[in-house]
Amino acid sequence: MDGIRTESSEHSQPASGNYRGLLATEPRGMSPVARLVRRVLRSLGDPPLEFVLWNGERVAASGQAPVASLRIADRATLLRMCIRGQLELGDAYADGRLLVDGDLEKAIEEVYLHAPPVQEGALPGGRPRHRRRNTLERSRDNVHHHYDIGNDFYALWLGETMAYTCAYYPTPAATLDEAQVAKMDHVCRKLGLAPGESVIEAGCGWGTLALHMARHYGVTVRAFNISAEQVRFARERATALGLTRQVEFIHDDYRNITGACDKFASVGMLEHVGTDNYAELGGVIVRCLKPNGRALIHSIGRNRPKLMHPWIERRIFPGAYPPSLAEMMQIFEPWNLSVLDVENLRLHYARTLEHWWAAFEQSRDRVAAMFDERFVRMWRLYLAGSVAAFRVGEMQLFQVVCAPGRSNAIPWTRAQLYAS
Amino acid sequence: MDGIRTESSEHSQPASGNYRGLLATEPRGMSPVARLVRRVLRSLGDPPLEFVLWNGERVAASGQAPVASLRIADRATLLRMCIRGQLELGDAYADGRLLVDGDLEKAIEEVYLHAPPVQEGALPGGRPRHRRRNTLERSRDNVHHHYDIGNDFYALWLGETMAYTCAYYPTPAATLDEAQVAKMDHVCRKLGLAPGESVIEAGCGWGTLALHMARHYGVTVRAFNISAEQVRFARERATALGLTRQVEFIHDDYRNITGACDKFASVGMLEHVGTDNYAELGGVIVRCLKPNGRALIHSIGRNRPKLMHPWIERRIFPGAYPPSLAEMMQIFEPWNLSVLDVENLRLHYARTLEHWWAAFEQSRDRVAAMFDERFVRMWRLYLAGSVAAFRVGEMQLFQVVCAPGRSNAIPWTRAQLYAS
Repeated sequence: MDGIRTESSEHSQPASGNYRGLLATEPRGMSPVARLVRRVLRSLGDPPLEFVLWNGERVAASGQAPVASLRIADRATLLRMCIRGQLELGDAYADGRLLVDGDLEKAIEEVYLHAPPVQEGALPGGRPRHRRRNTLERSRDNVHHHYDIGNDFYALWLGETMAYTCAYYPTPAATLDEAQVAKMDHVCRKLGLAPGESVIEAGCGWGTLALHMARHYGVTVRAFNISAEQVRFARERATALGLTRQVEFIHDDYRNITGACDKFASVGMLEHVGTDNYAELGGVIVRCLKPNGRALIHSIGRNRPKLMHPWIERRIFPGAYPPSLAEMMQIFEPWNLSVLDVENLRLHYARTLEHWWAAFEQSRDRVAAMFDERFVRMWRLYLAGSVAAFRVGEMQLFQVVCAPGRSNAIPWTRAQLYAS
Repeated sequence: MDGIRTESSEHSQPASGNYRGLLATEPRGMSPVARLVRRVLRSLGDPPLEFVLWNGERVAASGQAPVASLRIADRATLLRMCIRGQLELGDAYADGRLLVDGDLEKAIEEVYLHAPPVQEGALPGGRPRHRRRNTLERSRDNVHHHYDIGNDFYALWLGETMAYTCAYYPTPAATLDEAQVAKMDHVCRKLGLAPGESVIEAGCGWGTLALHMARHYGVTVRAFNISAEQVRFARERATALGLTRQVEFIHDDYRNITGACDKFASVGMLEHVGTDNYAELGGVIVRCLKPNGRALIHSIGRNRPKLMHPWIERRIFPGAYPPSLAEMMQIFEPWNLSVLDVENLRLHYARTLEHWWAAFEQSRDRVAAMFDERFVRMWRLYLAGSVAAFRVGEMQLFQVVCAPGRSNAIPWTRAQLYAS
């Protein structure tokens, strides 16, 4: 990742000396554009960042040494930043109209840590919802936008498992591949899989978990996904592994799932469902689960309701929304599903994203050849920003286990999850 | 518990032969009072119970063999049951105007299992709330009603620990005392207590957990309670154990807690708080917790919002309300507290209550001498009904661990909870 620490040769280090002089004369000595930059900084809560203008002028937020310098290419970019806020920060970075000298991830952490505080002690009246409801058709478009851009691209940095969800690191030193396998085993243990059981998986990615369950736990799996590219890849893997009789990959929406199962799993799909559809998802679970069944939902979440970052929602994950736990309960409570276990794996997702980002940067030339420089910068920002969001506690990762409300076929304790 | 299986000598077994003949002639051969009884049964969802009238007439709900016979003493009791519903069932049982031949606990299970279904797929519009807000003064009255009726009484059946909350059974065969100690250790491990740390406990009962923390984990504890009897008892224990310098018992409401702490615990108090006060409780937690602190809330709960059973709320626990998890989140989400871990220990509370009830029945003569027969019957119904409620999944037991949203001083995994 070192290669991205410094983007402009002129300013290889944040100029920690100069900005103090500038601040001493503020606002009298400031140019009109510098005043605009200060307005941008103030709107961000005055994080310890330094902006460097196209004319070399430098503006920093405060007396703290900046963790990074942000070089603005031209006047138009600055004006757009004033108008479009964080959406433009993302777009300008992707375009190369905003260059970052210093630690990109730390810079984003500072933006999160200095964000104007939410009102504590109260929740926003009328919880945030999707701006647009995720219909069957729109869900397919949304998923196509992100997951169908090329299996070869994802293979460059997701590791051998091709699992594109938070891993579980038994220790922080585990490798990405080890942690992805450990995550799958953690999920299978939470579900209490037994040989011969039937599993339905909603949103199966490239099929990694479904194939792991069949191979190592002797279950049959019906795995649903609306990404055509992922289903194609998953079917090829099932054939290569000789598991086509145990695992069926179905190119369809979770809302169309029918049939009964002993266990229901959904790892990394809920982010794309939208709160409007949570009760319907719960209905699918109760319709499919046998009376003594069990389900697991694994999803990015929040400590409190809040919309997705606008740039991520616009450019990376259209229609995505990470729910708070109270919002997630809209899946379970209408159906008297009993929540047995909730685990927050936030720091594991920060670690997972560090591994992904490092592998992505090692393959940056190949990515640039597959797409273009703009794509490389866009995905760098998404990955670095995601590391930052999980490190500072802006995002959470919840694994929720539930069972039908009347079932007593539930684990007595969680000790078996940790038995060696 | 066998002694309570049969309450009237005439009808030592449910008359599993007779009721079929009766049903065959229904409704033509039914007396007007029998029709009233059928109305009561229908209002309960036709559980497999048999009512026996004062004149010997028998009315059963369905073709199923009844699990118990309920003997109604007089016409007035039947009329009251039609008008007051389950509230009268409880009162009549306490008065001895309703006798139960058969398994009382199983009979209550059947009432729960046959209760008219809630509307699935939707939550009640406008969630249930307390009928009355638990002000400082009313909370004190409510707590006095239940917890100040005599430490000697509770000592008869709570076991050596005097812990009056759900225990944690490493295996179902553990004794009550073993399981109460295991519960305290489970809580201390979840909090990650380290020697020298400071703990605030909100709602400390007879002081068991606070004293355990100080003795076995080397922490100092400030423990709050509004029950005068419990605080007096807890202080005597602290003196006897030589722990008065480590543990301070404070006779005050959780809303008046001040001071800083590393860890915050509340085990079995939330049931008495009322959802109106959840955000205020969360405010107390964030006010007290140091930036890298951790908190644990242990409470009876529900799979979906629902008012307390009317007889329990009226006669046993005034002002009590067991929240759903979404409701519990009103404590945490307004303050950006991050939920790390939720564990549902429902079956452990069923087991705990079985132990309490058995010990209570063994001491029933002493209880009758302390109070009267009516009290014995009232508490039997409460204990048997609670066993049933947890066995059938009517009630849940949630342990929730949280930390300030920006803290990264959180456990990497939960493995240390299960390390031997």
